Amino acid sequence: MGKHVGRQTVVFDRPPVIASGASVVGPKEGQGPLASYFDEIWKDEMDGEKSWEKAESKLMKRAITLAIEKAGLKEENIQYILAGDLLNQLTASHFAIRDFSIPFLGMYGACSTMGLSMEVGAMLLDGGFADYVAVSASSHFCTSEKQFRMPLNYGSQRPLYATWTVTGSGSLVLAANGDGPRITAATAGKIVDYGIKDAFNMGGAMAPAAADVMKAHFQDLNRGPDYYDLIITGDLGYYGTQLTRELLEKEGFLLDERYTDCGIQIYDKEAQDTHGGGSGCGCSAVTMAGYLLSEIQKGAFHRVLLIPTGALLSPLSTQQGESIPCVAHAVVIEKE
Amino acid sequence: MGKHVGRQTVVFDRPPVIASGASVVGPKEGQGPLASYFDEIWKDEMDGEKSWEKAESKLMKRAITLAIEKAGLKEENIQYILAGDLLNQLTASHFAIRDFSIPFLGMYGACSTMGLSMEVGAMLLDGGFADYVAVSASSHFCTSEKQFRMPLNYGSQRPLYATWTVTGSGSLVLAANGDGPRITAATAGKIVDYGIKDAFNMGGAMAPAAADVMKAHFQDLNRGPDYYDLIITGDLGYYGTQLTRELLEKEGFLLDERYTDCGIQIYDKEAQDTHGGGSGCGCSAVTMAGYLLSEIQKGAFHRVLLIPTGALLSPLSTQQGESIPCVAHAVVIEKE
Repeated sequence: MGKHVGRQTVVFDRPPVIASGASVVGPKEGQGPLASYFDEIWKDEMDGEKSWEKAESKLMKRAITLAIEKAGLKEENIQYILAGDLLNQLTASHFAIRDFSIPFLGMYGACSTMGLSMEVGAMLLDGGFADYVAVSASSHFCTSEKQFRMPLNYGSQRPLYATWTVTGSGSLVLAANGDGPRITAATAGKIVDYGIKDAFNMGGAMAPAAADVMKAHFQDLNRGPDYYDLIITGDLGYYGTQLTRELLEKEGFLLDERYTDCGIQIYDKEAQDTHGGGSGCGCSAVTMAGYLLSEIQKGAFHRVLLIPTGALLSPLSTQQGESIPCVAHAVVIEKE
Repeated sequence: MGKHVGRQTVVFDRPPVIASGASVVGPKEGQGPLASYFDEIWKDEMDGEKSWEKAESKLMKRAITLAIEKAGLKEENIQYILAGDLLNQLTASHFAIRDFSIPFLGMYGACSTMGLSMEVGAMLLDGGFADYVAVSASSHFCTSEKQFRMPLNYGSQRPLYATWTVTGSGSLVLAANGDGPRITAATAGKIVDYGIKDAFNMGGAMAPAAADVMKAHFQDLNRGPDYYDLIITGDLGYYGTQLTRELLEKEGFLLDERYTDCGIQIYDKEAQDTHGGGSGCGCSAVTMAGYLLSEIQKGAFHRVLLIPTGALLSPLSTQQGESIPCVAHAVVIEKE
């Protein structure tokens, strides 16, 4: 098959266009370095909803609505929504998307969900199955801490290497035709598990999956990191990026200063006391739909490799003594 | 776009082939009417594993392994696995697929997951992105009861309209080329919520979503139920199928004796005391990979409309007083 290159990569014949992006975030993200790129910033974590989960749904609903509007489209123009989140049974997504009259394809890749959705969405467009698709992912600090770690009210201490879950949702409208940044290729990750069992150390657990898919990407396309002017993982944070650099350097791929992580960009580590960096499905989603899309449109970056990263654990698998399987999906965004 | 017909349906230019199917089930399914169609039947619900969750993972791992073997292929021939299950964070799938060196695309559509995976998988093949993909879904009576309803040890009573979660995993290998039954079209469902809040009444909650996607399917393709010699929903059971018949009859589509449900076929209601019928991701997955594939290959059915149905609730959304959003995906399988 012409479009499949190597073991894990597809190259698009008619690269889909990112027609628009929208991001809605919580107050902490609105105080961070990327604040000016977000469409809406909430004053608190609830925005008038009765539960954190309903608030997370509202973030996603609003981000999808805005992305469709910003693309100059209406709900009926969108053939599919591809979306997911971290909550059990994708609660945030289902109750957000219930209010749209658009066919829904549910995706789960933990914090790699935005990459997964962009990758599959681009395949549906290039394959001729749609003119427009919307992709989205969300996370919420309070729903995540409650579900994966400790109820916030316990006030439990977090190790300094723990990451901070982003409250926010980012959505894109992808189009089969038009002008703008294009998704030119994507590399799908395998599940990688190096045996790490510490559920606070997400960056460390996910780094091998990120390095694995990046290595596959470079090899499949016979290109090195220097093809890109920005390489950005999803939510490895400070410790995970360092490990990713080391793993890839051993394989002969030098990630220099062009490499960073959405979880590093989204918070001011010192001023915001966010320890290991940002994380969550929303981390790469709002960074993509806000900062990256805007800077690519402006011409600040021409070739970007975005690699959202996901830790596929569940609280139950951790309780049963299991290690953390991880995955990452790499998406190439180009605008000459 | 040529392939997109109407609002929700795609018709494949090069309809993907179902190259093989495999199903592994628990003891209760192995005592039911479809027993002879399953590849492996476990003697108990654990098969030597230490937890129900690990047992469910093993079901899926085995079903995928068998499907690849039966297609005469090796792991390295498969470009993607598309799979999901009901457990929080797709625990069963992730720990099953961790052991394969195959790129993984995580799908969540609750009990519609097999339909979702077949639909997206077929698009990837027809779009030229792969030669072979594996699709899979699983469920397990004990993991589901524990997570969604009551721990089994409580011995709590179930209402007579409650369905029985199937213990089993079904997997298919889909191919871009070759001979055999073909997936010729698929209709993606929107999320439909009629306000039902009783989490035991899954059939009733899901019936409107099934009827909605079937109506869209018939309208988009300008064909009626009589095009098919079998129309089979995923896990509506006895009460949900009755409601689906009534809803579609109001829309002018008469589902006569050609319509049934995987949840009706898989158990002997009287002898097995399964109340409302079978349910769970595994219900449509093992019925498809076992009974349906075998009968289509033999020529007993030439045109089948399979509509796996999913209730997108979570225990938390129910606790927060929410109703049950549902979805269904319709897949057409033909062999002349």
